[in-house]
Amino acid sequence: MTGITIIGTGNMGRAIGARAVAAGSRIQILDRDPDKARELADQLGGDILTGTLGDTPDGDIVVLALPFEAAKEVVSSYGDALSGRTVVDITNPVDLSTFDSLVVPPDTSAAETIAGLAPAGVSVVKAFNTTFAATLTEGRVAGQPLDVLIAGDSADAKKAVADLATAMGLHPVDVGPLRRARELEGFQFLMMTLQADPARRDFNWNTGLKILTPA
Amino acid sequence: MTGITIIGTGNMGRAIGARAVAAGSRIQILDRDPDKARELADQLGGDILTGTLGDTPDGDIVVLALPFEAAKEVVSSYGDALSGRTVVDITNPVDLSTFDSLVVPPDTSAAETIAGLAPAGVSVVKAFNTTFAATLTEGRVAGQPLDVLIAGDSADAKKAVADLATAMGLHPVDVGPLRRARELEGFQFLMMTLQADPARRDFNWNTGLKILTPA
Repeated sequence: MTGITIIGTGNMGRAIGARAVAAGSRIQILDRDPDKARELADQLGGDILTGTLGDTPDGDIVVLALPFEAAKEVVSSYGDALSGRTVVDITNPVDLSTFDSLVVPPDTSAAETIAGLAPAGVSVVKAFNTTFAATLTEGRVAGQPLDVLIAGDSADAKKAVADLATAMGLHPVDVGPLRRARELEGFQFLMMTLQADPARRDFNWNTGLKILTPA
Repeated sequence: MTGITIIGTGNMGRAIGARAVAAGSRIQILDRDPDKARELADQLGGDILTGTLGDTPDGDIVVLALPFEAAKEVVSSYGDALSGRTVVDITNPVDLSTFDSLVVPPDTSAAETIAGLAPAGVSVVKAFNTTFAATLTEGRVAGQPLDVLIAGDSADAKKAVADLATAMGLHPVDVGPLRRARELEGFQFLMMTLQADPARRDFNWNTGLKILTPA
């Protein structure tokens, strides 16, 4: 099992941590506040390494469980310390001032922006941006394992993330090169607008997107 | 039940026709070749009106079951004859020369382009672009009714399409204003790339996109 470093202790860090515990992964949690990392590790249970943002990542897979702006800063500040690792971008760069578009121009994506900040030798993979924290913590919705849509330019890096998702009890789907993150981010933005829609109280940040096939 | 006019006799015209028959809708099928319209009507069964492209649409809901370029031409040539009707754009304006992007600029959509060609008094609704013909013909996938994601700027027009989808045994989801067609078209483009992926032979143009909620 590949080790995973989770940077960030918010809802998504917690949800990915819960799945990683279920997968039996070697886990490290880093946060700007090391006490928050320790607190989350204790809540998740198991033998989890913790530390402070800036510590050398233990995992081959580093999940940036952070908002877009923070994810950019962390990749820039880590720089070469990420070399050889697979960095997972989970962000949805929604313009929260309008909730009507993304903050990235339409000819790029958060994932491509983050990849542009990463040093050579780092493979950036888009994943877990279409899974809300609550459903991801459960791993299933309506009796179905959650789909994890994965975009990236390195087949090896995508396979590592797909294998991790499988070990987490989820269903990985390789959706193509990293630029497909544009469509993943665009569609999840649409999904987010529905969660906040008073007409859809059945959604309420609990939906799971599934690509179903005939039985 | 609102009457529906289907313009076009391809796979999607056939699939929407099959669902409309199941719904017990009043149906009219128009095609450039009226023999094709009659042939499809006979195959679908029931009491279906047919005619030639250019005939006055019988239905309050007019579905453009056509490729994007043809849909634009039809809206332009019908002009005021569409007034008072709800026009449903189902297109996915994929750049087939690259299969890597859409032919519409990212700050608009096929649906908005078509709306821009329609005369005043026509409500354009995006719907059925995320349902592949094979699964739509069945109406269900993996035991679930298909989601029909609906975008539009007229609440009344969206409700008419949603009511039709419900009568068809499908599950309508209002995803917001017509500009959300950008995200619907972008994501369905991604879905289309997966159908053509030899690594996903289980997909094979038979997938159904579902927004699942906890049971």
